[in-house]
Amino acid sequence: MPARPESETAFLSIEQAGRLLRRKEISPVELVDAALARIERWSPNLHAFLTVLEKRARAQAKIAEREIRLGKIRGPLHGIPVSLKDNFGTRAIRTTAGSKILANFVPDADSDVAKSLTEAGAILLGKTNMHEFAYGITGENPHYGSSRNPWAHDRITGGSSGGSAVAVTTGMGFGSFGTDTGGSIRIPAALCGIVGLKPTYGLVSLDGVVPLSVSFDHAGPLARNVTDACILLEAVAAKFPRGAMRPNYQVLRKSLPRRFRLGWPKDFFFERVNPEIRRGMEAAAKKLEELGARIEEIALPNLAEPVDRATNLVVAEASYYHESQGYFPSRSEDYGDDVRGHLEWGHNLRAVDYLRGIDGRRDVNEIFAAALEKVDAIIAPTSPIAAPLIGERQIRVPGERETAVRAELLRLTRPANLTGLPAISIPCGFTNDGLPIGLQLIGHHWGEARLLAVALAFEDSTDWHTRHPNLS
Amino acid sequence: MPARPESETAFLSIEQAGRLLRRKEISPVELVDAALARIERWSPNLHAFLTVLEKRARAQAKIAEREIRLGKIRGPLHGIPVSLKDNFGTRAIRTTAGSKILANFVPDADSDVAKSLTEAGAILLGKTNMHEFAYGITGENPHYGSSRNPWAHDRITGGSSGGSAVAVTTGMGFGSFGTDTGGSIRIPAALCGIVGLKPTYGLVSLDGVVPLSVSFDHAGPLARNVTDACILLEAVAAKFPRGAMRPNYQVLRKSLPRRFRLGWPKDFFFERVNPEIRRGMEAAAKKLEELGARIEEIALPNLAEPVDRATNLVVAEASYYHESQGYFPSRSEDYGDDVRGHLEWGHNLRAVDYLRGIDGRRDVNEIFAAALEKVDAIIAPTSPIAAPLIGERQIRVPGERETAVRAELLRLTRPANLTGLPAISIPCGFTNDGLPIGLQLIGHHWGEARLLAVALAFEDSTDWHTRHPNLS
Repeated sequence: MPARPESETAFLSIEQAGRLLRRKEISPVELVDAALARIERWSPNLHAFLTVLEKRARAQAKIAEREIRLGKIRGPLHGIPVSLKDNFGTRAIRTTAGSKILANFVPDADSDVAKSLTEAGAILLGKTNMHEFAYGITGENPHYGSSRNPWAHDRITGGSSGGSAVAVTTGMGFGSFGTDTGGSIRIPAALCGIVGLKPTYGLVSLDGVVPLSVSFDHAGPLARNVTDACILLEAVAAKFPRGAMRPNYQVLRKSLPRRFRLGWPKDFFFERVNPEIRRGMEAAAKKLEELGARIEEIALPNLAEPVDRATNLVVAEASYYHESQGYFPSRSEDYGDDVRGHLEWGHNLRAVDYLRGIDGRRDVNEIFAAALEKVDAIIAPTSPIAAPLIGERQIRVPGERETAVRAELLRLTRPANLTGLPAISIPCGFTNDGLPIGLQLIGHHWGEARLLAVALAFEDSTDWHTRHPNLS
Repeated sequence: MPARPESETAFLSIEQAGRLLRRKEISPVELVDAALARIERWSPNLHAFLTVLEKRARAQAKIAEREIRLGKIRGPLHGIPVSLKDNFGTRAIRTTAGSKILANFVPDADSDVAKSLTEAGAILLGKTNMHEFAYGITGENPHYGSSRNPWAHDRITGGSSGGSAVAVTTGMGFGSFGTDTGGSIRIPAALCGIVGLKPTYGLVSLDGVVPLSVSFDHAGPLARNVTDACILLEAVAAKFPRGAMRPNYQVLRKSLPRRFRLGWPKDFFFERVNPEIRRGMEAAAKKLEELGARIEEIALPNLAEPVDRATNLVVAEASYYHESQGYFPSRSEDYGDDVRGHLEWGHNLRAVDYLRGIDGRRDVNEIFAAALEKVDAIIAPTSPIAAPLIGERQIRVPGERETAVRAELLRLTRPANLTGLPAISIPCGFTNDGLPIGLQLIGHHWGEARLLAVALAFEDSTDWHTRHPNLS
């Protein structure tokens, strides 16, 4: 068979790679070689990986090659190299959670996601860089270096799953798993121009993951296209409740009804949005209308205030974890300044503010339940701004003088964490500066199948997901 | 028919009174007259009632008399005079919750319990005295006077449902409803020598009740015997989950199996218990053995520590309510010193302590779930001490120098609030000083029918419940 250039191999879809693997037109060893070559070349500069499992991955590839040759196909991920954010516990493999405190932590058991991936036959390339303890949305990291946006190396990737986003964007593997407590899968996906899915709360097990805030933590895939995201999700998803449809990548295209309904929020999601991003959303809505969507204005009245209140829960849970582990405040000096600051906030938060947060979450849930009554999904920007510069703390947004980068980045993704609703970010264009724009779709609880079908219909009619950053 | 002495009328059981009513051998008017006469004579000294509904009760009695004469029997409470603790909202009737802050609060709707009692044909005599905002276990009240123990007027009734306990003990009505967040039904029942039932969390609606701590508040009856308590519970109980037996006062005696199992805790419940009370429990256990119980030692290992941790939840929820209503801290000076102190404690509690409390509650639940696996109910003292003097703050208990009265009174009742398990206090003797002793039985979730059957078997074989204090 003709030699395939490494860059082509590295950017195959999981479906394509799987087909080639089963036809023996390519070997898992080649897939791993291509990914490892890219990691070696670009990860040191982009800070994508904290641990590269070169030997282990090559050995796994050999085993997969043999199994596939014998016709023992485990499924669509068999022989496919992927990565895991470094807060997923991996047996006998260092799991730092991007922190100094866990710099030498080597779990003696796999997280459930790691187990599921092994069972699916996926090959683990390594553990990706992340915002320290997943407690930040920029992907900057004082201990291991800040991950760099492949589209503009002086800009952030977004976080906390920044390394995973870099890896997937640059062909260092075919997909990755991240975690998302306030936007940590969707924001880096949006800022790096790939697909990021935060599933319904509880769908993907967090057993064996270093937690941030247990009531709001979600694990989910980062991928280069919607079908890949679906394949990755299927490998790790728990049971769906009775009556809910389990996503199936082979029938996603057939599952979208000819007419479906999408909600365009007149409140909250389009306040203070960069005009180029707003135009991207408007173009996406138009495209979706052509594809069969009826777009309706929906109300999300007074959402900002209860979201703020409910954020107390996230902050308190994080501090509780770090205090109960004995990390904070006793090892205060071992945290980066930002994470230490957040932990102090939670440390000082009052119990009555926590209870205000519980009421706030209930209010947020009610607002979204009402808004979703008439629509299949809500359209929104993933982030109101494109990737800021590394180190940039304040940013100018329409209608405000200056505001905190962190708060802006989190603003539109946090509601889906508070409600547990599934939400996906998919590529939907570029700013004039060439920075990716992410479209966020928020669906119904356990509505992943419909959400992915809508996302795929949009993806099929656009080519944003086929563009890759030029790294050389 | 021959005139019945008032004292005899006032101390009929609800079953007896109902029989006489249906046979027209007595009228609801006589029942109300007897109760009102006793209220008039003794309530001013004992501080049993905050509001007496003399006219309204007599009018209700007339209506009930007519309905019964016409054969329209609503049920076993039809024509029976009862009272409500003053935190149950009552339409057009002042509802103070024992506080200065709500001194002039007149709800425009009935609480669910008040509604159910009206539908059952019960007659409301008035609203009973209570610890301010139900936030205390002694029944002392700086605004309306402390309720006095009918067995020793210089001693506390226990609280917070102290007025209800006085009313029931002294024949000012046939039963009362109280609330119980840490022991507020069971403690006054025990200290006054009557029956008090805290049902399973959620069984009796708290809609329209001034809350203390919403996750731990329970409403339930105070009565002079177990059958009365069952009748009162039946009138207000919501649905039981599928598979649970609904208590039925007519078949309670038949429902107890010939052999049943009771757990005698080797931990926690018999630490620091007054020796006379311990002997009362031992005698009760022996009696229960004769009645068919197999008594087994059960372990409740390390219970005190998670109970303490979980108490943070109770305190925080109370402060959150008072803060969200705008009562605290703005009207700090309108609270009694003790309640203000508790509210300050909750005000200053940290969110991470609240989360420690959530873990504590989980631990308490697990300890009880394990202990209840092999037994139908747990035997314990309701209170480790008999009624202290009014104003007494410190008390000497076995094995300790001195300890806070409040903490001792709450110690053995709080666990059932944290777990939501049903628990009943029934009379089981008197100390050498003539103060009542309460036996606590803690059952399985939704196990009220079995719990009441055990309690009734014990009651049937003893005569403690037939003794009444001499008031003259």
